[in-house]
Amino acid sequence: MRIELIFIGEELLRGAVVNTNAAYLGFQFSTLGWKVSQQTIIPDIPEIIKECVGDALKRADLILMTGGLGPTLDDCTRKALATLFDTELVRSEEVFADLKARYGNRAISLEDQATIPRLAKALFNPVGTAPGLLLEKEERLLVALPGVPIEMRTLFEEKVRPYLLKRYKERRTFLADSLSFFAVTESEMDLVIRKVHARYPEVEFGIYPREGTLTINLIANHAQPLEEVKQELIRAFPQHQFSSVNGKLEEAIHAWMIAHHKTLALAESCTGGRIAAQLTALAGSSQYFLGAFVPYSNRLKERVLGVSKQTLIEHGAVSEEVVEEMLLSLFRLTEAEYGLAITGLAGPDIKDEKLPVGTLYIAVGARGQNPRIESYCFSGNREKIQLLAVNYALGALYREIN
Amino acid sequence: MRIELIFIGEELLRGAVVNTNAAYLGFQFSTLGWKVSQQTIIPDIPEIIKECVGDALKRADLILMTGGLGPTLDDCTRKALATLFDTELVRSEEVFADLKARYGNRAISLEDQATIPRLAKALFNPVGTAPGLLLEKEERLLVALPGVPIEMRTLFEEKVRPYLLKRYKERRTFLADSLSFFAVTESEMDLVIRKVHARYPEVEFGIYPREGTLTINLIANHAQPLEEVKQELIRAFPQHQFSSVNGKLEEAIHAWMIAHHKTLALAESCTGGRIAAQLTALAGSSQYFLGAFVPYSNRLKERVLGVSKQTLIEHGAVSEEVVEEMLLSLFRLTEAEYGLAITGLAGPDIKDEKLPVGTLYIAVGARGQNPRIESYCFSGNREKIQLLAVNYALGALYREIN
Repeated sequence: MRIELIFIGEELLRGAVVNTNAAYLGFQFSTLGWKVSQQTIIPDIPEIIKECVGDALKRADLILMTGGLGPTLDDCTRKALATLFDTELVRSEEVFADLKARYGNRAISLEDQATIPRLAKALFNPVGTAPGLLLEKEERLLVALPGVPIEMRTLFEEKVRPYLLKRYKERRTFLADSLSFFAVTESEMDLVIRKVHARYPEVEFGIYPREGTLTINLIANHAQPLEEVKQELIRAFPQHQFSSVNGKLEEAIHAWMIAHHKTLALAESCTGGRIAAQLTALAGSSQYFLGAFVPYSNRLKERVLGVSKQTLIEHGAVSEEVVEEMLLSLFRLTEAEYGLAITGLAGPDIKDEKLPVGTLYIAVGARGQNPRIESYCFSGNREKIQLLAVNYALGALYREIN
Repeated sequence: MRIELIFIGEELLRGAVVNTNAAYLGFQFSTLGWKVSQQTIIPDIPEIIKECVGDALKRADLILMTGGLGPTLDDCTRKALATLFDTELVRSEEVFADLKARYGNRAISLEDQATIPRLAKALFNPVGTAPGLLLEKEERLLVALPGVPIEMRTLFEEKVRPYLLKRYKERRTFLADSLSFFAVTESEMDLVIRKVHARYPEVEFGIYPREGTLTINLIANHAQPLEEVKQELIRAFPQHQFSSVNGKLEEAIHAWMIAHHKTLALAESCTGGRIAAQLTALAGSSQYFLGAFVPYSNRLKERVLGVSKQTLIEHGAVSEEVVEEMLLSLFRLTEAEYGLAITGLAGPDIKDEKLPVGTLYIAVGARGQNPRIESYCFSGNREKIQLLAVNYALGALYREIN
C-alpha cells in the first residue's frame, strides 16, 4: 500500500512553524504497520493543490492531507478537491447542524465550513470548526484534515485511525512495538542494540531520543523475534524501563497513582511548573494530584514552603538540604502520600557562582519514609536542562514507586 | 525564482524525528526575501531520489536537498546525483586532504566521503565528514547538504548563504512582517482581512491560528502598503494586538515585566502549572516571577491559599468569588505587584454538574487595585480548553498592563 502525506500551508514553507504534524502522522502510520512513501509540502494556491493532489492520486492508494480547510480566504482546499473528484461544493446540513449546536448563532459566519464536496463524507470535528473530509475514487482514498495540530490529532485518533484499521484490515505488513527507558543515554543504548541486532538481523531498530528518555521502536515480520528482542533490551536496563503508549514518563506515573489510589504533591523550583503541567494535561489527574508549589524566589521557598532561612543561607537554594526541606514541607502542607521536590540552576544567568548551570537536586518519597535524593549536573541550554530535569525527576519518582 | 527543498530520510517519513531542517531553511529563505515553493520528503532509495530530483530540476531554479550523504550503506544520494548530472563519481583529492587533516588515520574509512560527482564543487564541512555539494545544469543550481542539523546549518550559514546572495543578487523579491493578536477568532479576523485585502490586493496575507492567539504574516513588494495594512489591522482590534517575535503572549508579558521592574505571582487551578511553565521557560524570568500555586484540590485551595470554606461551598470552586479570593491570597502570601488567578473545568470528567466543561474564571490585577475578572466557556477537549485558558489568562493580564 502506497501512502502519501500532503501538507498545505505557506507557514510551513516559510519556516514560521515546524511541521510536527508530519512527524506525528509518520509515527502513527508506523505503529499501524504501514510506511509513508512521500511527504509533500505546498502553498495554499488552488492550481498547485490541484496539481499536487492530482499527481498523488495517480501514484498512491491513500493520501492524507492537512491544512487549507479553515474559513479564511487563503483556505481553498475544498474547492480543489471538488474539482479533482468531479463533484461540486454543497452545504452539508449535517455539518451545519453540528456547528450550530456547538457554536450557536456564530454558526452563520461559519457557513463556509459546512460547505463541502458533495461526494465527501464529513468527519465531525469536536475541537474546531473545520470538518475532516473523506473522499474515494477508484479504490483510492483521500483524507483531508485541518492543519491545526490539536484538531488534526483529535480527528485522526477518533475518526481516521479506526476507519483505516477497518478498511485496510489485511494490509498490515509488519509488526511494530516500542519500549521506553529513562536515564539511559543514546550511546549506552546504541552499544546494547548493536549486540542484539547482530543476533536478530531481521528486526529493525529505531531509537527515538527525547531529553532524559529514549523510545526504541521495533519492527519485525514475526512475533517471536520481536518479543525476544524486547526482553533482551529490558534485561540490559531493568531499573530504567517504563511502560507508556506514548513514551511519556508522566503517563506511567499517572496510571500507577490511579491504579494504587495514592496521592501526590509537588514542589518545583527550577522546572517552574512543567511537571505539574504535564501531569494535569492528562484527564483524570485530579484523582491523585493534589497540587504543586512553584516557589521560584527564595522568599517564597521560605515564606510559603517554610524552608528555613538558615538552610538557605548556609547551603544555598540549590542543595540537598533545601530540596529535602521542600519535600518535607509538602507532607506538612498537604495530605499527599507521595511527594516530589526539585531545585536547580537552569541558567543561563548564574545566581550562585559556586555551582555550575545545570546543577540539580531531586527529592522523592512516600510520607513517613526516608526520601530518595538524587543530584545531577547537566549541560545544555535552558530548555534542554529544564526538560532533562523534568524527566529525571519523574524517573526518580517512578523508581521509588516500582 | 522557484526554490524547492528535498529532504531524504526514512526517519522523517516514519516520524522518528521532527523535520526541523525544513523550518530552519524555510525561515532562512524568507529572511533572504525568497519563497520556497515546495518541500518533498522521500526515502533513501536510489531510483526514488533520481526521479524526485529529476522532476524538481525540470521545475525549479534552485534545489536545496539534505540527507543521504553519510558513509553508511543506506546513503546513496551522490550516486543518484552523478547520474542526473551526466557525470561519474571520483575521489576528490582536496576533500580527502581536508578529511585527513581533521580526522587523521580514520580518514581511510572515510574515503567514501571524499568520493563525489566529478562536476560538483565540494563545500568543506567543518563540523562533520560529509562535504556539501554544489552542482549546476543549464542555469539550474542544486545544493546537497548533510542531514545532521548542526552540519546542515553550519554549511548553510558559512558556505551556501553567501554563495546564493552573490549569485542571485537582484532577486530579492519581497518584504515580510507579522502581527499577533489574542482573544480574536479566526473568523473575526477573516472578516477584517477580506476588507483590507480588497483595498490592498498587492499584499499577501497568511493567518496562523493557535489556541487563543493569531499571527498574521504579511508579504509585500513595498514598505508603504505593508505598513498601512499593519496599521489597519491594529486599528480593527486595538485592545488585542501584542508584540512578540514568536507570536507568544508570554514573551510579551515577560518583556514588559522586565522593562517595568514589576513582579508577578500566579494561582493556577485548571491550567495546572502551564502558565508558570511557559513563563519560566524564558531566560531571565527570575527577575520578575516570584512563583506559583497550583491548588488543584479544593483542600489545597482552602488550606494553602486560604480560600474560605464557605465561599467554596456556596459558590463552588469554579466561580467568580473563588477566583477573586485566589488572587487576593497571592497578594497576601507573596510580595508580588501583579497577580493572576485562574480556576475552571478542563474536563472531560464533570465534578460540578451545575457548570459545563470549559467554564473558566480569570482574575488579574495590580496589588491594591480592583481586579479585572473575566469568565469564559470554551468547547473542545481537555488539551484545547487548557491551551485556550492559558492564552486567555495571559491575554487578560496583557490588557491589564497595557
